[in-house]
Amino acid sequence: MITGKNYIGNQLSSEGNRTYKTYNPKLNLENEHTFYEASDQEIEKAVLLAAEAFKTYKKTSGAKKAEFITAIADEILALGDLLIQTYISETGLPEGRAKGERGRTVGQLRTFAELVSEGSWVEATIDTADPDRAPIPKQDIRKMLVPLGPIVVFGASNFPLAYSTAGGDTAAAFAAGCPVIVKSHPMHAATGELVASAIHNAAQKTGMPNGIFSNLNSSGIEVGVQLVKHPKVKAVGFTGSIRAGRALFDLASQRPEPIPVFAEMGSINPVVLLPEATKTRGEVLAKTYANSITLGTGQFCTNPGLILGIKGETLDHFINILSDEIVGIEPSCMLHPNIIGNYENNKTHVLQQNGLSITAEYDGDLLINHARQTITKVEGKTFLENPKLHQEVFGPFSMIVQCKDAKELEDIISNLEGQLTGTILAEKEEAVLYDSVIEALQNRVGRIIYNGVPTGVEVCPAMLHGGPYPASTDSRFTAVGIHSIKRWVRPFSYQSWPNHLLPDELKNENPLGISRLVDGNPSQRKI
Amino acid sequence: MITGKNYIGNQLSSEGNRTYKTYNPKLNLENEHTFYEASDQEIEKAVLLAAEAFKTYKKTSGAKKAEFITAIADEILALGDLLIQTYISETGLPEGRAKGERGRTVGQLRTFAELVSEGSWVEATIDTADPDRAPIPKQDIRKMLVPLGPIVVFGASNFPLAYSTAGGDTAAAFAAGCPVIVKSHPMHAATGELVASAIHNAAQKTGMPNGIFSNLNSSGIEVGVQLVKHPKVKAVGFTGSIRAGRALFDLASQRPEPIPVFAEMGSINPVVLLPEATKTRGEVLAKTYANSITLGTGQFCTNPGLILGIKGETLDHFINILSDEIVGIEPSCMLHPNIIGNYENNKTHVLQQNGLSITAEYDGDLLINHARQTITKVEGKTFLENPKLHQEVFGPFSMIVQCKDAKELEDIISNLEGQLTGTILAEKEEAVLYDSVIEALQNRVGRIIYNGVPTGVEVCPAMLHGGPYPASTDSRFTAVGIHSIKRWVRPFSYQSWPNHLLPDELKNENPLGISRLVDGNPSQRKI
Repeated sequence: MITGKNYIGNQLSSEGNRTYKTYNPKLNLENEHTFYEASDQEIEKAVLLAAEAFKTYKKTSGAKKAEFITAIADEILALGDLLIQTYISETGLPEGRAKGERGRTVGQLRTFAELVSEGSWVEATIDTADPDRAPIPKQDIRKMLVPLGPIVVFGASNFPLAYSTAGGDTAAAFAAGCPVIVKSHPMHAATGELVASAIHNAAQKTGMPNGIFSNLNSSGIEVGVQLVKHPKVKAVGFTGSIRAGRALFDLASQRPEPIPVFAEMGSINPVVLLPEATKTRGEVLAKTYANSITLGTGQFCTNPGLILGIKGETLDHFINILSDEIVGIEPSCMLHPNIIGNYENNKTHVLQQNGLSITAEYDGDLLINHARQTITKVEGKTFLENPKLHQEVFGPFSMIVQCKDAKELEDIISNLEGQLTGTILAEKEEAVLYDSVIEALQNRVGRIIYNGVPTGVEVCPAMLHGGPYPASTDSRFTAVGIHSIKRWVRPFSYQSWPNHLLPDELKNENPLGISRLVDGNPSQRKI
Repeated sequence: MITGKNYIGNQLSSEGNRTYKTYNPKLNLENEHTFYEASDQEIEKAVLLAAEAFKTYKKTSGAKKAEFITAIADEILALGDLLIQTYISETGLPEGRAKGERGRTVGQLRTFAELVSEGSWVEATIDTADPDRAPIPKQDIRKMLVPLGPIVVFGASNFPLAYSTAGGDTAAAFAAGCPVIVKSHPMHAATGELVASAIHNAAQKTGMPNGIFSNLNSSGIEVGVQLVKHPKVKAVGFTGSIRAGRALFDLASQRPEPIPVFAEMGSINPVVLLPEATKTRGEVLAKTYANSITLGTGQFCTNPGLILGIKGETLDHFINILSDEIVGIEPSCMLHPNIIGNYENNKTHVLQQNGLSITAEYDGDLLINHARQTITKVEGKTFLENPKLHQEVFGPFSMIVQCKDAKELEDIISNLEGQLTGTILAEKEEAVLYDSVIEALQNRVGRIIYNGVPTGVEVCPAMLHGGPYPASTDSRFTAVGIHSIKRWVRPFSYQSWPNHLLPDELKNENPLGISRLVDGNPSQRKI
């Protein structure tokens, strides 16, 4: 049931005066439910409950945490078609996508449950004592990762399930041992509340402390600002625009006690089309990229917004085929009138720049809130000299840059801001000829792809989703995969600590049977 | 030979107009050499050289990096007695300490050389492809840690060797694959130049690119500010005061591209004296702590500046013995007239607070620049209510807080700022009775010690030297031990990348024979 209320710990609450509704972009109508924005008091209460819950939850065993996280996955599935239909009504996305994203969300939760159930993720490191060492005896020192404290998660507009309420940030934080306060995304508040109810049920069924989770409704920036400034909040996860992510980062950095913000923000995901590949496979690549650019109406942070090639006939041919292909694709609905409004504004802004021309734009009739996919092109020199052309146009849009030679290509890449991904499209052995181009691209991105598309972010241990600023606020962490847990933990050392008072992970007898680094060597043995 | 010049890459350079000299605190005289502060142009040149060197150095093999780092250790030892005597003349510290710190510095370098020579530190993670997976084939994705780029290191006043020019930050950065620019500490510029010459020689002998290292003289804040703001600088390491560390953190956070700053800053290192331990071993503990408080004239970031006990006769007894012991210790010289000036000022400031009284202060004659060790005491309530009493007095000073009960003890700990260390002094089984006190302490520190002293930071994998702010600017990293390399690296993913173009660490055949996570399982096997 959707109530429009906030979860303040395990209580539904609606003390605030501001209300709002979500929007069905396909029907171009407001949805029925009214949401109550969290009041200052409700925010305060949620944080205090989280800080209190942390005292218990940080000591909760991996097995118990796994039970809780698994129960969340089960409860999400138990929401059944109501969740799917609500998701669709708040996003305009098709049912297949809704179900796929639910699968991804549930999969992520189960992966983190396995991780903490197994237990070696804490990176237990043990250096045993040497009382005979001269001139000073060596003390016994043992280290493991421990949770930071209450985490605030800002859900993403474009992933209402996988990067929102019980998405990657939340799953990683629960696995780490941190309570979570979600600032619900206003565009999918009902989807958020349903998922929040699943987390609430899971917490109740598995005996988790009150305050381990809260879900706060919010239509503006105030709730988020108050949360990030709160002294008891210890870290922030965010997925969204550079403007908003940077604002949160600045707020967090200016606190008396600065806290880490991991913001996964904008990216234009440069794709480098090498000449031989353009010549040999231009048509296939053009078709593949027409699909990648329009996938999910271009509403992916890994959408290929920039295609770099060497000017000439083969690149012209690629541009022509891409243009023909893309206008043949049926336009699709964007998430919200504001999103399509931004898309049109950003496109207008970029098209006002000198030297940029449209090579293809869908010109048929459009259903309401459906986006007109657009391909543009520009000369390398013009692109290099105008940083306004480097900005993301979130939606089914891409810009082809015609470089005069490999040197200009390398210069352009070296002058790009940080990116989530970079892609090299090359024929066999061709990449070797462009090693300095590839080097330059590696320096600017978090993930580099060979002969593929950047869209589609596999959830696996080897995935790095992040990258140099402004792709993320800290390139040293990933937002996807098991290693994303490292955002929410810190190493902690025990010196000469009595064995029976140590956490199980560090006890001599290794009761959890985890892998540890003992006196410099990986080992699962007892000490 | 000491020239007073800067190393701008492999060139000695003295273009600046400002000069300064270092000081011998024992003789209360300026040392002979004149140092030339780096000019704006020299700073710019050092950074551009570092950025250029990074292109080569980031691809340098672990074996070659190990050769370079080992050569630094050898070259430092080859400086022989000149280094030791220079160190002594610039610090007032005794020869044993100078040699001990040189041993630690050389040991740290050799440890990092071993780490990169072995190679598994890159956390290679491989998820192989599954072309038959439905509905979407699984791509091959491989991840490893790669260096961030040029790092700026600010040396510490109190560790001219182990945490300065070729200290922990520099060793970790070179191991990671990052060029280093050292902002030399003005109090030991000659020691710094000697070590810089060792790094320079090592780089020449092992064929490292020009710009892999620069050493910039500086007597004020300008050189550091210009370095931290430079767009080609990618991270900062700092050891020193909260004021300076926070200023650098703020500068770095406000850049158009924010960069990570790992600052290891102040700490008062609370020590909790439980009643049974006080009763049973009060005398021994008092003697031990008299030594720990005055060790190195109290000039350690882990100096025990705060001792918390439960008010009563046994605590009084401890205070009396500690007081008797500490005034019997021969005072020693501080690093610089400015350091002793700050010590006296901070002590005066804290003694102006209501309710604080002196229980012991050395009252004999003092040699020049020698510090008067001081023990103070205060009631728990007074301490809790006045944050000015929580500030570090860097030097041989400690404050004993008399708590009325365990509850007040816990409240005080919970309200402390973040600390490097916390110590519990307890009798057998006593700790169990104070579990909430210990919990509170764990929340506020990076390392917790049982029945020991916080001074003495073992260099080993299990050491966490850092902690919640303001002990450090990011509790998720350590400044000591092999894992400190993680400050200077980021994970990077290759997707569907051709095997022959992958770095050795990620190639199918595992030519380096390192440990990797392959499809979720630790393994050294080929794929």
